Amino acid sequence: MLAGSSIGHNLVLTSFGESHGKCVGSVLDGCPAGLELDEKDIQKMLDLRRPGQSLVSTQRKEGDIVEILSGVFRGYTTGAPITTIIWNKDHDSKSYAKLRTTMRPGHSDYPAFVKYKKFNDHRGGGRFSGRLTATYVMGGAIARKLLKVTLGVETNAYTCKIGKIQMKNQATPQMLKSIYTNEVRCPEKAIAGKMKKSILDARKKGDSLGGVIESITNNIPVGLGEPIFSSLESELSKAIYSIPAVKGVEFGSGFSGSEKFGSQNNDSYTFRKGKVITKTNNAGGILGGISNGMPIIMRVAFKPASSIGKIQETVDLKTKKNTKLRVEGRHDPCVVPRAPPVVDSIVSLVIADQALQGGFIKPVI
Amino acid sequence: MLAGSSIGHNLVLTSFGESHGKCVGSVLDGCPAGLELDEKDIQKMLDLRRPGQSLVSTQRKEGDIVEILSGVFRGYTTGAPITTIIWNKDHDSKSYAKLRTTMRPGHSDYPAFVKYKKFNDHRGGGRFSGRLTATYVMGGAIARKLLKVTLGVETNAYTCKIGKIQMKNQATPQMLKSIYTNEVRCPEKAIAGKMKKSILDARKKGDSLGGVIESITNNIPVGLGEPIFSSLESELSKAIYSIPAVKGVEFGSGFSGSEKFGSQNNDSYTFRKGKVITKTNNAGGILGGISNGMPIIMRVAFKPASSIGKIQETVDLKTKKNTKLRVEGRHDPCVVPRAPPVVDSIVSLVIADQALQGGFIKPVI
Amino acid sequence: MLAGSSIGHNLVLTSFGESHGKCVGSVLDGCPAGLELDEKDIQKMLDLRRPGQSLVSTQRKEGDIVEILSGVFRGYTTGAPITTIIWNKDHDSKSYAKLRTTMRPGHSDYPAFVKYKKFNDHRGGGRFSGRLTATYVMGGAIARKLLKVTLGVETNAYTCKIGKIQMKNQATPQMLKSIYTNEVRCPEKAIAGKMKKSILDARKKGDSLGGVIESITNNIPVGLGEPIFSSLESELSKAIYSIPAVKGVEFGSGFSGSEKFGSQNNDSYTFRKGKVITKTNNAGGILGGISNGMPIIMRVAFKPASSIGKIQETVDLKTKKNTKLRVEGRHDPCVVPRAPPVVDSIVSLVIADQALQGGFIKPVI
Amino acid sequence: MLAGSSIGHNLVLTSFGESHGKCVGSVLDGCPAGLELDEKDIQKMLDLRRPGQSLVSTQRKEGDIVEILSGVFRGYTTGAPITTIIWNKDHDSKSYAKLRTTMRPGHSDYPAFVKYKKFNDHRGGGRFSGRLTATYVMGGAIARKLLKVTLGVETNAYTCKIGKIQMKNQATPQMLKSIYTNEVRCPEKAIAGKMKKSILDARKKGDSLGGVIESITNNIPVGLGEPIFSSLESELSKAIYSIPAVKGVEFGSGFSGSEKFGSQNNDSYTFRKGKVITKTNNAGGILGGISNGMPIIMRVAFKPASSIGKIQETVDLKTKKNTKLRVEGRHDPCVVPRAPPVVDSIVSLVIADQALQGGFIKPVI
Repeated sequence: MLAGSSIGHNLVLTSFGESHGKCVGSVLDGCPAGLELDEKDIQKMLDLRRPGQSLVSTQRKEGDIVEILSGVFRGYTTGAPITTIIWNKDHDSKSYAKLRTTMRPGHSDYPAFVKYKKFNDHRGGGRFSGRLTATYVMGGAIARKLLKVTLGVETNAYTCKIGKIQMKNQATPQMLKSIYTNEVRCPEKAIAGKMKKSILDARKKGDSLGGVIESITNNIPVGLGEPIFSSLESELSKAIYSIPAVKGVEFGSGFSGSEKFGSQNNDSYTFRKGKVITKTNNAGGILGGISNGMPIIMRVAFKPASSIGKIQETVDLKTKKNTKLRVEGRHDPCVVPRAPPVVDSIVSLVIADQALQGGFIKPVI
Repeated sequence: MLAGSSIGHNLVLTSFGESHGKCVGSVLDGCPAGLELDEKDIQKMLDLRRPGQSLVSTQRKEGDIVEILSGVFRGYTTGAPITTIIWNKDHDSKSYAKLRTTMRPGHSDYPAFVKYKKFNDHRGGGRFSGRLTATYVMGGAIARKLLKVTLGVETNAYTCKIGKIQMKNQATPQMLKSIYTNEVRCPEKAIAGKMKKSILDARKKGDSLGGVIESITNNIPVGLGEPIFSSLESELSKAIYSIPAVKGVEFGSGFSGSEKFGSQNNDSYTFRKGKVITKTNNAGGILGGISNGMPIIMRVAFKPASSIGKIQETVDLKTKKNTKLRVEGRHDPCVVPRAPPVVDSIVSLVIADQALQGGFIKPVI
Repeated sequence: MLAGSSIGHNLVLTSFGESHGKCVGSVLDGCPAGLELDEKDIQKMLDLRRPGQSLVSTQRKEGDIVEILSGVFRGYTTGAPITTIIWNKDHDSKSYAKLRTTMRPGHSDYPAFVKYKKFNDHRGGGRFSGRLTATYVMGGAIARKLLKVTLGVETNAYTCKIGKIQMKNQATPQMLKSIYTNEVRCPEKAIAGKMKKSILDARKKGDSLGGVIESITNNIPVGLGEPIFSSLESELSKAIYSIPAVKGVEFGSGFSGSEKFGSQNNDSYTFRKGKVITKTNNAGGILGGISNGMPIIMRVAFKPASSIGKIQETVDLKTKKNTKLRVEGRHDPCVVPRAPPVVDSIVSLVIADQALQGGFIKPVI
Repeated sequence: MLAGSSIGHNLVLTSFGESHGKCVGSVLDGCPAGLELDEKDIQKMLDLRRPGQSLVSTQRKEGDIVEILSGVFRGYTTGAPITTIIWNKDHDSKSYAKLRTTMRPGHSDYPAFVKYKKFNDHRGGGRFSGRLTATYVMGGAIARKLLKVTLGVETNAYTCKIGKIQMKNQATPQMLKSIYTNEVRCPEKAIAGKMKKSILDARKKGDSLGGVIESITNNIPVGLGEPIFSSLESELSKAIYSIPAVKGVEFGSGFSGSEKFGSQNNDSYTFRKGKVITKTNNAGGILGGISNGMPIIMRVAFKPASSIGKIQETVDLKTKKNTKLRVEGRHDPCVVPRAPPVVDSIVSLVIADQALQGGFIKPVI
């Protein structure tokens, strides 16, 4: 883990902590001075990713309470790094003792063991745990508020697919308001019901499911992104791939767009109320790596959760023999419903970073 | 373009030049001393992306000849930055004069005009031209040789899909040897023929096609990637998205994997000849952001080329009115067949960068 | 404070917290796995910079107790970021209320007020307080141990000058062992006595003194430093200038060397026991920005402490009028005696960072 | 040389080339669009550092002619990276053949040989040659013009000391206009004459001299610098130490300030025409790492040139024996008179970088 714990250029998030250590936390450096901020702004978003909210997710009660340790004075950000922390409470590490040398399929166990040797803190996945996404949310909640207050940017992610059950169309602006009205975070009620059922079914079988999150960001100014290597797609995808279980990222028409003709996929321009817009948005709001003012559309594929109750074939690095394994403990049968606030956080961090770079947000707001 | 022209941490590629300027070039900093290198090593790979090789691609004759300007002494790299350059020859910029204020749909024209104002060098797409990928190839050819010589790493990309025509299975090691035996760079001969026909058909209609490139990298050591933000997927996807027209990146089973159950998608471990391998490779060789020793599998979606002969609706920023446009000049009806060496270059740069970071390659080889 | 809170390339220190906030802390990212580490390793060095040890320094009792929050598992570093924290206890911020708009000469008050507006946390100097050097020491103590364990590198800084009282010669290896036997951290006993007296005299007059720290680092391998912009001198001086009150940095013969002839200042080479050494060390162990194996010699000038008891002329930004000010509270009449462990920390961080870059230290030790 | 060839955060200079290779060049990335620029702007400054102008400097005729390769379109910068190059002409590398294994005292030869092994391009000092400072000037001339046009910032460096001959006082604004009226670049005519004589004397003896450059930068806005690790002093000193032969850097009263009392060294504030200024400038325009609006004052110590005509003791790494060496060829007896434009360039690059970071200069000017 040679210095891979920070991300961003102007707005830099440093993530620290382990799943079963004392705490998880983040340092957000580069946030402008003058943003009104207290714990509630962060807690609200953190609560949305908390597990234990229904049968869909793990039964663990994390009870994540954020505390701001630095960077805020008299209710406003000062320009200094903002440190936020969650003290870990619930960590029963016993079930991980036997996993020391038995590699769980689909998890980081094996490459982490080779990379960090016996020193890796494997308890609860250590640094590789989905729990670390709480540190993205702590920084991301701040970035999201910054974007809203300064530029009116709104970013909303939702579950558009679980297993093979999917929404037919992109969510309308109206639908974006109802994302959190159900446990799977899908703004289409009927589909949400089917998704929930499929997750419960998988759960019953000791299996797990994956899915796809769609992210829509509105009110983006034209001109974000720094070609050619810090394109908006480059920076967004890099950050999104730091979420555990992500295996695909596409923008606009994405993979399906590659099946179309240019005459179908190109977005025609037109003036609307004196403003240049495109009639369609197959580009997902990004051309040449730069935002074109249309909504940024991104879809993120999550693999099915790796921890399953079924017996799996694997190896024991101590005995150097093949063996079998059933992962015990309480686990999410599907992490996708917990992902929308995480995706929102990552998107907010990247957009705010680029907005600072491009001078769209000032050092003191 | 605030300082977005470099990529990498230990092995840093800086790209410079414009499509219709004097030259395009790259500076590769951080390459270890002691690598045998001359222009031929680079020219060979550069030739593979050259247009004008068949009816499939544009009829322009670029005749890209690489020249090494620094960093090589007596046939070996010295540890100093390696500068490579191609002098531009064939640039008829007249057809771009009328495009000054008429925005081509699908291109960077509009956001670039807003971002850089009238100062943007729009001729031939300027910095946003596919021509700039030649600068990736110049650096990438060096990284590729470095990886082969030091670690035996082999990376091979090929066209697996054009429009709706696609290969059924991933290429076998044997097939990887025949990628460049046809113009579309598809290692499955029958499919390649259909792909070619579909491109010629699109061309006839003044239209364009997109497609998908698959990349396979073998002999990767376990342990590449620096969690949690410099994961191997993060670094690869970031770099890949700097290729113009890329709109999707997935690893292993990717988007289709999100439809599976965990029990299907998890890759079981087993010992083979004393070495730990997985029986399947749905993870695409990366777990927890770290290489697990299996081949790295990545698929990259390219949108259909934006320059088409058909009339399109757009805006004129000078008259502030809607207008129509037919893009003139000679253009690729499909850029995908030129992409494999570009993808190989980007993959090589990222893998070499991470291999240096992890200490797998020494400062003097 | 746009993202200036981190330093380093491979070994990255992020500093957070404020003088009168909840805590000060640091995140050290990139430390190899396998280093035996507990709080005592850090506390020992932290204690050496603590004020309140004698009349020489401020009477405040900081009682800095370090706590490790992450990155250590079963007594060894894991490769994950190591977070260390000190909870602030003793902060009486009342005396700072009146300083809100009255600018203290020599302090950061005025530029910080212009830069961060009213949002700056000015209490006790906020981010600009010498207290923040505790965060360098927390990270630096780890780097110092890492260097000692892996390469046998020893770094020692001491007070060589206070006001106009100075040592005649550089400390011998023997003398380096007695740095902490007196309150001013000068290894020459007689001089130390005079230094102490001069500080007490200044104190009595409500005035302050500056001085010079000399740093000697032994057992450095040949080849550290990455020309031409990450030269060893570049990286060291950059880091050293992040210590408050530093106004000069020189290496080897430094400013006095610029008065010499080349024939006097060049260091002749000779073989000693089969090893190449130089007979003199005017280069301070660095040639062409790279370590040459000789001890690294650096001198650092500290200005006299800005907080003095005398009445000073200044401005009030609220009334927009000139005014007078006497800085109240307990302050160091001279910060130099507290600086040696801070300089040792910074030197250790930079040397370890470069040693990792050059492959001299492995990712798992 | 692992990726040490770039410097800057927003405005990034990448330097390439070798003393006796094909060329030396630079890529300046992040320069705003809209700056009027042609070769003359750069050539003018480049001419000021050219050797061969008098007996003072080396007799080589470098005839450095700059060519802009990218980033400028119709006379204005575009926002794309600006590549500038000088083609090398005059390189007689024969005299360096015998130096392959005989280490020149004071030069980088020995550590470079250990670091890069036999692959190092040692001819003419290779990457370590003073010739590389031409690449700083190419980028720096652009930064300097950018600062002048956008902020009215003026930076001027001059020789204040050669050997033991020095100016008594800092140059007045009036004197800054006459820096280039003599060969040693000292704005005090009488002192300049003595300096010239001392250089000629050293030359006659086959010896060399060092000296000190003073740099004054006016019209700096308040608020440049990003605490705590990217302080203005940190960034300036880091960059300055990339100039060969620099061994000391101090700001304001620097080392001599450390001899003063706080009551002497603190700069009192006062209002002048409604603006806050300090009555003295011992801080050199920087407090808490941030510019306070007063002129930035920096002094830079250069060691005497390492190449001397006298016989020196050294080692031969091939024979592994001690030996003697007389450095042949034409060399500067004193590099200081060539340094002012180099220091101006480095200062301009750093100040412009920080001005972009702080939002003082816009992405399109």
